[in-house]
Amino acid sequence: MNKPCIFCEISAGRMDADIVYSDDDIVAFKDIHPRAPVHLLVIPREHIPSHQDMLESHSTLFGRMHWVAKQLAEEYGVAESGYRTIFNCGRDGGQEVWHIHLHLLGGRPLAWPP
Amino acid sequence: MNKPCIFCEISAGRMDADIVYSDDDIVAFKDIHPRAPVHLLVIPREHIPSHQDMLESHSTLFGRMHWVAKQLAEEYGVAESGYRTIFNCGRDGGQEVWHIHLHLLGGRPLAWPP
Repeated sequence: MNKPCIFCEISAGRMDADIVYSDDDIVAFKDIHPRAPVHLLVIPREHIPSHQDMLESHSTLFGRMHWVAKQLAEEYGVAESGYRTIFNCGRDGGQEVWHIHLHLLGGRPLAWPP
Repeated sequence: MNKPCIFCEISAGRMDADIVYSDDDIVAFKDIHPRAPVHLLVIPREHIPSHQDMLESHSTLFGRMHWVAKQLAEEYGVAESGYRTIFNCGRDGGQEVWHIHLHLLGGRPLAWPP
């Protein structure tokens, strides 16, 4: 039997997470391994494994994930100081959970190149 | 007199860039300071200074930038190996040009945290 997707479980309320935003299509919560003072994950409720599985019809959904991230940046006080949003895709991207998630990182200077 | 925005100049064809994609709303080109074997920038033609200037009405545009990035990842041979997409916003995000741009990085393992 396949393990359930942990982000689908969080979306469905069957697994605990520190939820910071929720609507019909999108959920956001704190990363359990934070890499910055502010480190939130914004996910679609729909199970899209990776950025590479995006369909053109997902465009508005992907944009709305950014709209949520922008609002969370304000709410968590990093809009002025700056932040970074990231999708990791696949092996070289360092993707760890196969349900697409937008990282929002802020609260410290983020090095470049990543 | 204010300097013109270099990404608006590229979008308008008044400044050279190695363009890899172009449509009515979006342009993509190679980063002149590549940080990975594949390093492309996807920009809207509209002058949106930063992620923090996003309006809700930009959601589809932001999603379409990801749709373009996904297709470019395939075209540049990093869809299988993996890649990362990034918006840098503001000082802590390391934003260098004040016309929003989505970085597409691939072709090498990308470290985490960024």
